[in-house]
Amino acid sequence: MSFPALLTDLYQLTMAQAYFELDMHETAVFELFVRKLPGTRRFLVAAGLEQVIDYIEQLRFTSEDIEFLSALGTFRAPFLRYLQSVRFTGSVHAMAEGTPFFTDEPIIRVTGPILEAQLLESRILNIAHFQSLIASKAARCVLAAGGRRLVDFGLRRAHEADAGILAARAAYLAGFDATATVESGRRFGIALSGTLAHSFIEAHDSEEQAFRNFVKASSGATTLLVDTYDTERAVQRVIDIERELAPRDAVHRVQAIRIDSGDLAAQARSARRMLDAAHRGDLKIVLSGGLDEHSIEALVRDGVPVDIFGVGTSLDTSSDVPALDMAYKLQEYAGKPRRKQSVGKATWPGAKQVYRQRDDARRAALDRICLADEPAGGEPLLREVLRAGKRLAPLPTLSEIRDYCRREVVALPPDLHRLEAGDSAYPVQISDAVRKLAAGFDAALGSGRRGRPICPGEQRARKNRDC
Amino acid sequence: MSFPALLTDLYQLTMAQAYFELDMHETAVFELFVRKLPGTRRFLVAAGLEQVIDYIEQLRFTSEDIEFLSALGTFRAPFLRYLQSVRFTGSVHAMAEGTPFFTDEPIIRVTGPILEAQLLESRILNIAHFQSLIASKAARCVLAAGGRRLVDFGLRRAHEADAGILAARAAYLAGFDATATVESGRRFGIALSGTLAHSFIEAHDSEEQAFRNFVKASSGATTLLVDTYDTERAVQRVIDIERELAPRDAVHRVQAIRIDSGDLAAQARSARRMLDAAHRGDLKIVLSGGLDEHSIEALVRDGVPVDIFGVGTSLDTSSDVPALDMAYKLQEYAGKPRRKQSVGKATWPGAKQVYRQRDDARRAALDRICLADEPAGGEPLLREVLRAGKRLAPLPTLSEIRDYCRREVVALPPDLHRLEAGDSAYPVQISDAVRKLAAGFDAALGSGRRGRPICPGEQRARKNRDC
Repeated sequence: MSFPALLTDLYQLTMAQAYFELDMHETAVFELFVRKLPGTRRFLVAAGLEQVIDYIEQLRFTSEDIEFLSALGTFRAPFLRYLQSVRFTGSVHAMAEGTPFFTDEPIIRVTGPILEAQLLESRILNIAHFQSLIASKAARCVLAAGGRRLVDFGLRRAHEADAGILAARAAYLAGFDATATVESGRRFGIALSGTLAHSFIEAHDSEEQAFRNFVKASSGATTLLVDTYDTERAVQRVIDIERELAPRDAVHRVQAIRIDSGDLAAQARSARRMLDAAHRGDLKIVLSGGLDEHSIEALVRDGVPVDIFGVGTSLDTSSDVPALDMAYKLQEYAGKPRRKQSVGKATWPGAKQVYRQRDDARRAALDRICLADEPAGGEPLLREVLRAGKRLAPLPTLSEIRDYCRREVVALPPDLHRLEAGDSAYPVQISDAVRKLAAGFDAALGSGRRGRPICPGEQRARKNRDC
Repeated sequence: MSFPALLTDLYQLTMAQAYFELDMHETAVFELFVRKLPGTRRFLVAAGLEQVIDYIEQLRFTSEDIEFLSALGTFRAPFLRYLQSVRFTGSVHAMAEGTPFFTDEPIIRVTGPILEAQLLESRILNIAHFQSLIASKAARCVLAAGGRRLVDFGLRRAHEADAGILAARAAYLAGFDATATVESGRRFGIALSGTLAHSFIEAHDSEEQAFRNFVKASSGATTLLVDTYDTERAVQRVIDIERELAPRDAVHRVQAIRIDSGDLAAQARSARRMLDAAHRGDLKIVLSGGLDEHSIEALVRDGVPVDIFGVGTSLDTSSDVPALDMAYKLQEYAGKPRRKQSVGKATWPGAKQVYRQRDDARRAALDRICLADEPAGGEPLLREVLRAGKRLAPLPTLSEIRDYCRREVVALPPDLHRLEAGDSAYPVQISDAVRKLAAGFDAALGSGRRGRPICPGEQRARKNRDC
């Protein structure tokens, strides 16, 4: 990946200039968190940390960047000179990729001179938001598929190149088995999957000729697409071709059929019956075409014979929830707590840690959001990964993250494994020390907004609620 | 932009190998179109052609690409040697960027040797789908804003880097005025906008000090954010600071205030009253925070005093419709029509042209989808833009596209300017010649799917409908 420094919002640079000119260089603490889980997400999965750390380590303004900024007329020479050599010199604490997380829990905490830490906001959000969004969606597909294989087919309707490439990574770490996106296979070592499209069949004057030709031209086992014209006729053709080939050809074989349209359940059942009757129980069935976690769950629940699901648009765009309410907020500056009091957007101040408590079966039972320096029990979820601008140790490999994610999702309370909408039952407590810090801040500022205590999640309609 | 050749689905390459080994090199025609407009889109806006053409002209497999493919074990040496020198040698016809389009209308038609034209599928879709998606969403915001300025704020929750960069382009061509994304300003010459975030206010011990500091450190007119703690108090502070500065300082001025949370209408009204009472009618009001075309329309309809809208997540993710049912389908091969008959995914065969007929006021009245070589009336919307692999002429500039798009959207029937869901009333006719070609194809293949005529848009539930 490349990380252009100008891939940011203009205000990060105007603020940076102000901090520079005002000589404000004290330490700031920013935290990245989700304000509220979408109704249809009972948990989210943290992802994208590796690219966030790459970005932070590589952040540089080139001379072309500086020239462009200079031409805008908004920035003055001393600041632009400073910008040319600016590096991030602070530290980052973060949840490991693959960790399930909840409302208000910081997943990344950035500590450093305010100018440097502020500069990172737009791109950190842009990276971590997208991969967490997709990993959270993918984890639901994995739960729905009940052990059947899942393949990412989403490149074509992913939101441009990077989304296609990184959706494959996020889906894989949350338990997908493969992707059709070749570039993702190259960059991340993810297994690749894919054989032919309808156009190959249509380019031939008959489906039978198309099947024979594709098997002949393939090296190794292949998957044939059977829904271009008439699925049952196509399945019969596959059986006939295989019967002819079987004794003579160990290399050119059909390993699976794919159905991509129409009534997937009915076609899969009929195909399975035909294949089994022809003693081809080994031939697998791939289903695709507008699938999401709900249709996958229904197919599995109804006992439809299916071995592999291809999931495209709904996965790569997280189509039911295409964005999370994720924010990167200042929580401390110059040793003092800071918070936003805006209606519906208030935040918990202070540098924080999340402790996960487990029951005897090591199942997650309770999270507590505490101050970072508060003595607290349980397992701290944020660990220092970068100090003085450099990563402390290599991050886990993608396959380590995938194993960890699978274990952690399984270890959630079973109620959180359900797909339908509903308030998450998972308890997240805010420690007394955090609440006290918020109250103290409000008092110091002039006793809160018109004297009322301000708490995150406050809405206009329930503005008198205590927190 | 860079265009890695491996940013494609694996099956494009396995099919290419099959075409290569089978010596199938005849001319294919593929078309890119949307199968069905989403209920909440009465029209779509074509966008992304410039990046599609860049991609086609620049498509190259590097030796690293070939090495990676070779290591997969799926591809044989003669094909890989061929791939290393493959270029697209065919032609492209396309609707100009900014053209409103409808169901079944091809917006890009690719003609060339089947292997080359097939290879382009995934990335052409990936590029044109995203920008058309965002331009279509942006056009709705522009209609809603009734002439007020619109700024793209969406980078942070756009789906990774490219989506953020290109959403700004697509929004601008559909009528947005500026973006906060600096990289988009650099690449596309789009005006930039942005001043400060809540964190700047919070980093100060008082809001008043923050305002004074920001105005002091800014060069030129600035926008102050007034909703961090208490909007009315903040507006009063802005008025007081401005009053002090006014006689002495022509450079450091506040030009606008921004409100980003809570009840935007009530706060904007109260702010406007306070500003006007202080004789600061010139000071503009910017509203942002979770806006989309519906909330913009409501604010405008209710006469809320607002000059500029900042639109973020809903724009950059097209949150209500995060994907279009866009496809790239084989319509002709070796001079013969081709079509997919799959339930719900059948296509109209043949190389096609779209003619737009206008009424006396030059308002769009009717589109006809005809065969490309059929004599037909009206204005042909697809023009040849690339021949023998090279663009024929420079494409329009972004600002030319923007002017054209604005004219064309205004020239749509007024009913199409409404934002609420509803079947588009715009008439799109399929020519008799296209219908005849489809019927002839079905007959030749064995009289359609079990003897029924197949028409695009056919659903399981209405499978006996004629078309």
